Amino acid sequence: MSEKSPLLEAFKRTDHQLPGHGNRNIQVLKEAMNRMDGQLESDVYGNGRIIEDFQEKIAGYLGKESAVFFPSGTMAQQIALRIWCDQNGIKKVAYHPLCHLEIHEEDGLKELHGIESILLADKNRVITMDDVRNIKEEISCLLLELPQREIGGQLPDYETLQAISDYCRNKGVKLHLDGARLFEILPYYQKTAAEVCALFDSVYVSFYKGIGGVAGAILAGDKGFTERSKVWKRRHGGDLISLYPYIVSADYYFDQRIGKMGDYHEGAKELAALYQDCEGVRTVPVNPVSNMFHLYFDAPKEEVEAILIQTYDETGIGLTGYVKENGEKSCFCEVSIGDNYLHVPKSELENALQVLNQKLKEKILA
Amino acid sequence: MSEKSPLLEAFKRTDHQLPGHGNRNIQVLKEAMNRMDGQLESDVYGNGRIIEDFQEKIAGYLGKESAVFFPSGTMAQQIALRIWCDQNGIKKVAYHPLCHLEIHEEDGLKELHGIESILLADKNRVITMDDVRNIKEEISCLLLELPQREIGGQLPDYETLQAISDYCRNKGVKLHLDGARLFEILPYYQKTAAEVCALFDSVYVSFYKGIGGVAGAILAGDKGFTERSKVWKRRHGGDLISLYPYIVSADYYFDQRIGKMGDYHEGAKELAALYQDCEGVRTVPVNPVSNMFHLYFDAPKEEVEAILIQTYDETGIGLTGYVKENGEKSCFCEVSIGDNYLHVPKSELENALQVLNQKLKEKILA
Repeated sequence: MSEKSPLLEAFKRTDHQLPGHGNRNIQVLKEAMNRMDGQLESDVYGNGRIIEDFQEKIAGYLGKESAVFFPSGTMAQQIALRIWCDQNGIKKVAYHPLCHLEIHEEDGLKELHGIESILLADKNRVITMDDVRNIKEEISCLLLELPQREIGGQLPDYETLQAISDYCRNKGVKLHLDGARLFEILPYYQKTAAEVCALFDSVYVSFYKGIGGVAGAILAGDKGFTERSKVWKRRHGGDLISLYPYIVSADYYFDQRIGKMGDYHEGAKELAALYQDCEGVRTVPVNPVSNMFHLYFDAPKEEVEAILIQTYDETGIGLTGYVKENGEKSCFCEVSIGDNYLHVPKSELENALQVLNQKLKEKILA
Repeated sequence: MSEKSPLLEAFKRTDHQLPGHGNRNIQVLKEAMNRMDGQLESDVYGNGRIIEDFQEKIAGYLGKESAVFFPSGTMAQQIALRIWCDQNGIKKVAYHPLCHLEIHEEDGLKELHGIESILLADKNRVITMDDVRNIKEEISCLLLELPQREIGGQLPDYETLQAISDYCRNKGVKLHLDGARLFEILPYYQKTAAEVCALFDSVYVSFYKGIGGVAGAILAGDKGFTERSKVWKRRHGGDLISLYPYIVSADYYFDQRIGKMGDYHEGAKELAALYQDCEGVRTVPVNPVSNMFHLYFDAPKEEVEAILIQTYDETGIGLTGYVKENGEKSCFCEVSIGDNYLHVPKSELENALQVLNQKLKEKILA
């Protein structure tokens, strides 16, 4: 997503952009800091009111005994898996082929921790109870990502989750939740965070996806687990003298947005339905189960980019800032619904989709 | 250093506190952010103007080809040593027994990277050319910390540095600089940062010691080295979507304070001399070579705390917020000179030291 992409430039020019919470500019931090008393003392290497209060608050929200703030989910999750592997004495874990640890972390789990990964399920679908039952090797931990981001944000049904949790407990396999978008799926499951987290031994949540903070993550579990995670946090170089810039913003935007996850989910469902009325367009999943979905166009990237730019310029509505190739004749992008969508006038939105549809028809049927 | 320490409370009550730059409260970040345009875009996973500009600026200042911003020195230095070990094919490095990696990082270097450390020199003195010449085993990298913080901030003479650098180059051993307080020693050496850094293959500097930023570090070297460090930064979980809170504050306070390092050094020399006039007090080193020294009292911790509290309450001058036991009959603390010292009226300072001296005499000679 180069800064000089014509599609991105056209997207930025529009009056209303559908995805996200707005620009990720430094105003995000300024707004969160502005309301804080400057005399509040920094956290100091994991101690102090500012970090301890937030950790307690999120531990409570997740229904876990204890929680630790981390600069990143990459760090938090490798550490969670390392702790479970050390405890169970087997340096193997299982997760989805498109797990963040497998494709976005330069193999940190293997290179830093010497942990081997067993890939479950076909990469185009979520992990099932059968996948778990069919694991041939002994593993220390199973990681489930809810929702599975790289396939548009898909979920197993809740009964499957419960069955996997029961199975792992019986087998002595630890169950870890990659909850990067946990908040975003609660309206679909109609469960509290604590109800979902009760199925897992350890939980990671993020504060810059649906919550829209600057960065940062929480790792939660029982007290023994989180205390060990602090030792590894120091080893990783994540026990900073001051993490408050991330904590202040995480706390501020958590309070602002945690109650809006239902609106974001409704928005995703509505927008996905509108896209599906367009020629040669489909969404994955068909019915979003969170605030996100993937959007596929049955046309080459360059053609779609040209059509999108025209649509933006004609309607003032920005649909996406990028599309990626999906073979020669198709392209796709990820759509995440946040505050932006809630402020778009419905008539303008519908008009933009009609214009898009018209242009796609002309191109595809030509 | 508990929040409820009576010494710390008395210290906080004083009108003038000698060490540091002032409270590490969140105003430090607010001040740096206030001057910034909110529309400035966040860095994104290591890219963007805000991070690239600062990396270039500090690379230039250090006279290195390239630089990478890290959330912490712990992360940056483990990665530097890992890269050199991988390159030289030997998982051994040498450093001082009180090296940060040896005593403050929960053995991250060993636990995450499997790198063995060879400890050089007696822990109460700096590494000499002889120590380096006498290393029996093959190592990939030698780390020098300038100044050696845990012994009050001591330095080898510059000719020794040059000799060690020449020796390492001839032997094919990489030389890494732990420059957590590099800026602070330049007035003593009367060298530019680039002149000192030219002796080293890789350099880490910190932005929350003498510079007084919120947190963060730079790792610098040639382009091949820094590119590899980015891969390891991601593995460690340090490649955050947004590091700008640390970068903005590092940049702001770098500009404010880089020109004051000579003043801080002069202050440290002046204050150390004043302490040495007190009964049963000595400093390490006797003549500070940076903005810091260690302060030793020949009296038990509890007695010194009581005397310090009385001195603070009588004079309004806070000398230190803590002292640590050094055996049963002695205690010590670290003193780092920053902006605070420059604003203390000299007459009040001298009066406070006289009051301290009087009380120490009464106690020690009693």
